[in-house]
Amino acid sequence: VRLLFINPNTSSDITALVTSAALGFASPGTEITGATGRFGARYILTRAAAAVAAHAALDAYAEFGAGADVVVLACFGDPGLAALKEIAHQPVVGMAEAACALAATQGERFAIVTGGVLWGPMLEEFVATLGMRHRLAAVRTIAPSGADIARDPDGALDLLAAACNASATQDGADCVILGGAGLADIAAKIAGRVRIPVIDSIGTAVRAAEALGAQRPVKAHARQLAAIPPVATIGLEEKLAALMEGR
Amino acid sequence: VRLLFINPNTSSDITALVTSAALGFASPGTEITGATGRFGARYILTRAAAAVAAHAALDAYAEFGAGADVVVLACFGDPGLAALKEIAHQPVVGMAEAACALAATQGERFAIVTGGVLWGPMLEEFVATLGMRHRLAAVRTIAPSGADIARDPDGALDLLAAACNASATQDGADCVILGGAGLADIAAKIAGRVRIPVIDSIGTAVRAAEALGAQRPVKAHARQLAAIPPVATIGLEEKLAALMEGR
Amino acid sequence: VRLLFINPNTSSDITALVTSAALGFASPGTEITGATGRFGARYILTRAAAAVAAHAALDAYAEFGAGADVVVLACFGDPGLAALKEIAHQPVVGMAEAACALAATQGERFAIVTGGVLWGPMLEEFVATLGMRHRLAAVRTIAPSGADIARDPDGALDLLAAACNASATQDGADCVILGGAGLADIAAKIAGRVRIPVIDSIGTAVRAAEALGAQRPVKAHARQLAAIPPVATIGLEEKLAALMEGR
Amino acid sequence: VRLLFINPNTSSDITALVTSAALGFASPGTEITGATGRFGARYILTRAAAAVAAHAALDAYAEFGAGADVVVLACFGDPGLAALKEIAHQPVVGMAEAACALAATQGERFAIVTGGVLWGPMLEEFVATLGMRHRLAAVRTIAPSGADIARDPDGALDLLAAACNASATQDGADCVILGGAGLADIAAKIAGRVRIPVIDSIGTAVRAAEALGAQRPVKAHARQLAAIPPVATIGLEEKLAALMEGR
Amino acid sequence: VRLLFINPNTSSDITALVTSAALGFASPGTEITGATGRFGARYILTRAAAAVAAHAALDAYAEFGAGADVVVLACFGDPGLAALKEIAHQPVVGMAEAACALAATQGERFAIVTGGVLWGPMLEEFVATLGMRHRLAAVRTIAPSGADIARDPDGALDLLAAACNASATQDGADCVILGGAGLADIAAKIAGRVRIPVIDSIGTAVRAAEALGAQRPVKAHARQLAAIPPVATIGLEEKLAALMEGR
Amino acid sequence: VRLLFINPNTSSDITALVTSAALGFASPGTEITGATGRFGARYILTRAAAAVAAHAALDAYAEFGAGADVVVLACFGDPGLAALKEIAHQPVVGMAEAACALAATQGERFAIVTGGVLWGPMLEEFVATLGMRHRLAAVRTIAPSGADIARDPDGALDLLAAACNASATQDGADCVILGGAGLADIAAKIAGRVRIPVIDSIGTAVRAAEALGAQRPVKAHARQLAAIPPVATIGLEEKLAALMEGR
Repeated sequence: VRLLFINPNTSSDITALVTSAALGFASPGTEITGATGRFGARYILTRAAAAVAAHAALDAYAEFGAGADVVVLACFGDPGLAALKEIAHQPVVGMAEAACALAATQGERFAIVTGGVLWGPMLEEFVATLGMRHRLAAVRTIAPSGADIARDPDGALDLLAAACNASATQDGADCVILGGAGLADIAAKIAGRVRIPVIDSIGTAVRAAEALGAQRPVKAHARQLAAIPPVATIGLEEKLAALMEGR
Repeated sequence: VRLLFINPNTSSDITALVTSAALGFASPGTEITGATGRFGARYILTRAAAAVAAHAALDAYAEFGAGADVVVLACFGDPGLAALKEIAHQPVVGMAEAACALAATQGERFAIVTGGVLWGPMLEEFVATLGMRHRLAAVRTIAPSGADIARDPDGALDLLAAACNASATQDGADCVILGGAGLADIAAKIAGRVRIPVIDSIGTAVRAAEALGAQRPVKAHARQLAAIPPVATIGLEEKLAALMEGR
Repeated sequence: VRLLFINPNTSSDITALVTSAALGFASPGTEITGATGRFGARYILTRAAAAVAAHAALDAYAEFGAGADVVVLACFGDPGLAALKEIAHQPVVGMAEAACALAATQGERFAIVTGGVLWGPMLEEFVATLGMRHRLAAVRTIAPSGADIARDPDGALDLLAAACNASATQDGADCVILGGAGLADIAAKIAGRVRIPVIDSIGTAVRAAEALGAQRPVKAHARQLAAIPPVATIGLEEKLAALMEGR
Repeated sequence: VRLLFINPNTSSDITALVTSAALGFASPGTEITGATGRFGARYILTRAAAAVAAHAALDAYAEFGAGADVVVLACFGDPGLAALKEIAHQPVVGMAEAACALAATQGERFAIVTGGVLWGPMLEEFVATLGMRHRLAAVRTIAPSGADIARDPDGALDLLAAACNASATQDGADCVILGGAGLADIAAKIAGRVRIPVIDSIGTAVRAAEALGAQRPVKAHARQLAAIPPVATIGLEEKLAALMEGR
Repeated sequence: VRLLFINPNTSSDITALVTSAALGFASPGTEITGATGRFGARYILTRAAAAVAAHAALDAYAEFGAGADVVVLACFGDPGLAALKEIAHQPVVGMAEAACALAATQGERFAIVTGGVLWGPMLEEFVATLGMRHRLAAVRTIAPSGADIARDPDGALDLLAAACNASATQDGADCVILGGAGLADIAAKIAGRVRIPVIDSIGTAVRAAEALGAQRPVKAHARQLAAIPPVATIGLEEKLAALMEGR
Repeated sequence: VRLLFINPNTSSDITALVTSAALGFASPGTEITGATGRFGARYILTRAAAAVAAHAALDAYAEFGAGADVVVLACFGDPGLAALKEIAHQPVVGMAEAACALAATQGERFAIVTGGVLWGPMLEEFVATLGMRHRLAAVRTIAPSGADIARDPDGALDLLAAACNASATQDGADCVILGGAGLADIAAKIAGRVRIPVIDSIGTAVRAAEALGAQRPVKAHARQLAAIPPVATIGLEEKLAALMEGR
């Protein structure tokens, strides 16, 4: 099964990091390629950056989506997920959505630990849009952003492990998601130090994508995620324009 | 009070229509200007078009936002609303959000009537994000899009009035919102034929903006809508880049 | 547009205060008159007082409602709101309902600050009936009642500003409503000292009433707020009896 | 145990009917007395009538409440229930609240059948304030009001049995409440013809009141239903004024 | 009315204790018998023990259920309640469900106090299945289990009273349930020391059962709790097998 | 990774069917073994059968659980899931829970299609316990039970495909789960005839189990799913007794 990981920020080193980590979780025979946003924030920390990233994710899909069996939106927070599901011909997996879906099966309440304090309220709202607000024990953020952690993962291990344990002892979480493309491979490093199960968002997205790939669901012919009619556009990159205009 | 109406689609005739209608609802002394999206769909009918429009709304704000007291996001469905509230120095009014907020005070359940069948599920999801799903009796769409209605408003009056009445008799709505920038001045034309109160989304947005302008709330210095830190970007139009990068 | 402010407690000085403050927020051309409850508590602090005030509000409407375009129920907590909407021929605005509706558009969560500690749980329940319990960060009350504050507004400024700031820093509110007929003009005095936007409940009610007045919605001919059949009564003041009996 | 049934409408024949039916359900040793509203609607069919009845219920409690162990608010819809719980020195049972509480234990979803079509939306809203909206299969009303049924109970049996069965077959109810002071003794007459269990609201209220009486809970000294401070009043009947003013 | 109390744990002394306490609450003429689980935990403290107890409750019903008018599942937490309601020919009362239903009528929010710390999250989840999670102020558990308390009730009075008061002052409960078959007669002993009303789960279950017995609802002929078709089984005790197989 | 599929009914042919189908979905290197309930219903169609099956699932785990990396509860409806998660040393996947978690990521609302009409309300309640009731478009059941379908899969294809399509066109489902151990391999056979994506519950459970196995989460040392204290038991099979008693 061929998975396309779309990193909707504009840092190709993050793309390389996340696809490399994803391969480590993949089953034999799974192929993984990556795509990076052409415009927008180097690293997504604000709602405005996320809004631009949603556009960039569609743009990247228009450019690189053709050969994939399943598309993974590889930014924890899933900017543009609904639009990507609508426009894509394949199943789409959101990294945060998949991790929350799995976490909710492994305890009454789950926590999210990630880098970058501004992500706190953004992720609370995201979980609310999933209809899982009552299952969320807390979002705990540490000061270094995911990009910072990607540059120096070992320097953040203590902070992240402490945040995970605090989510159990102070917030009442039954399990904890380590979320973020920049947090690749961190879960395995700290799981032994954390009192509750740790869920890796990249690993979870890979397996959810494989699950969909193995079942090969077809594009819906009805309802919300069915193929949509063309709309006239101006000012867009050619491939996205063609995709939206049905050309 | 100076209101900036941002039309996030790329049709300047819709911008002209909505600002003209808005003036008709405004109090003496209110000034209204308009801005149009530079890129994206001519008329927003899909999630993908809405995602691009969110970016275009931020871009338009970066270009034209400086002198306004209050910003109105003038597309019923409010693409990019959270990001615009975050980045703007002024209060921001979403046309759909404001209309739903008022409608919820005028009955146990409200309906939305608009043009373009694809808007049905998109608006249901939008109302859910407001936490008002249980107050929504139904979204009823008619086949002509808002753009079509803007071109031939009188041709759609019967369809729209019938949809409004059906929302009362079949869906149990206590009042009904006529939503959409393209539906300017329709509410007044059909109110006499509808069995429940009809709420005009443009008029409501004007008055909500005036209410905020009269109270002149300052930008938050704390919490979710406080000013945010700069993020590095690439590939954006200069003014949006400067705004996001804090230059 | 002619607005009738019904103060359902029995203190005419509060009525004078709230109508005066309302005029300060009104658009040019808006006329405002007031009515005061004939029986019940001098100032509403208990559920029992609120229950009596609901009756008094209907009674005042029967006496003074005839010439108004829109009716404002001018007690933060809105006693009798549903009944007043049912019986009135005009649109009705509840001061607390309108303020909550606006506040919910200006942040993920809002707080309410008011005078009188017993109002705390009563307002929490009120917000729950609006279906907005999950949007309410907290109700913070100060010991002086609204009536006390009305007598000595400057003496309460520090307490109120501190409560507003605490709602941001301790309760996670994105904006805060200053609620209460007795808190006229306080918002403008303390807004500069508060870290999040402050919403004035009187100003908000005025503009919401103007919004409805500008759209002139007719009385519903169907559903919950449609005109109701007469019921036989005994023991009521003549005008309310006539209104309820359809005479 | 001494139970006071407060009928908040102004028809003493309904009071006699409901207390007589209540005695038939009571355990040996239970004493039941009744009180009737002094002012307001003969029979409650509208929100305005219910608002006045809330006042009348408090007034009746002030007059007759002294000797009771438990107070039952004997109007299905429970006007003034929260205020009565606040002001009363004894536990208070709402006839509709108690019936819904029991019904929710006897099936996933329950229905309410009663007389008077205007009660439909009022009872839906009431159940929502109990937080049980998702447990309510439907409110089915028949055209004769509870007062009409009280005058000619046998004439309504077929209509009521049909509504009960329709709530099972069409609305998915697992059990059904026959609600209303005027529907005394109807449940026993039609239970054999109804496909799901029928719950009598009067019988349920009696037993809930006895359960509280047997446990003799004291008035709360803390929290929402604790004794409240006196408030100054004008224009009220002497005994209610004395109760509210703490004299 | 004949009540069968099924104690689904395997301690007959607890059965004796709970039926004795139940008689103290019963009306004249009520007969109470008990049945004890044949297999499973001596005292239920874990989800696994509760799952086995659900089976044991069905097994006990198959053995002893024939002559009862109403069945009470006498373990606070109600293991197997839905299955017992389905299979029983009589109305079934869950001790925890009945107590929560009554408590929810005596305050905006209720607390539960019981013995055994593991019951905390189990009861939170149980209340959630009732759809009452938002009404639950807290579950407060003390270290001694219900079995420990049954052996030395007086030794636990101080701990239990303190937990009840803490639920009022720290958790915001308006009333508090003392839950558990092992806590027989404790409520009466500590009520005078607790600042909010105390609800006895055994007494409440008795009266709820009497309320159902007095109304004699028949087994549903439709919907979820109607009689079910036989299923083939193996390995079960003969009477349960016969009941499930329709023999 | 070694997966143990526990079939909690007592039909070993269903166990063989589901493990065989599971292998077809598994990644290279995944080993799958099965265990069958020792007592209870041949096929689970009632709440009583499900309650017994919960006990049987624990019993089977005690007998066969030792060597597995992940345990799959292989009955769509997941009887005993919470207890199994509590007692197991490994992660546990419920077949229905996993399918619902995935389905909720592939559309706003999902439907469930399965065999056996009594499963309809049971599955609605199950989805409610997951907190996903608002995401469930409908449960559609066909008359043949899962056991019947297992015996003659091809005879049910038309019925099942029709139910899936009806869930899209009549219930508004965006995707549909084919649920049930007996419905092995049906999804692949009918997917081409269904207008929305079809999700196979067995395939989904396999991949969810592999995702957990790949991350090797340890048993929680804190919170709800942490190891629990021993409880004394009587009358249980020796291995379950030993497990519950901590021997």
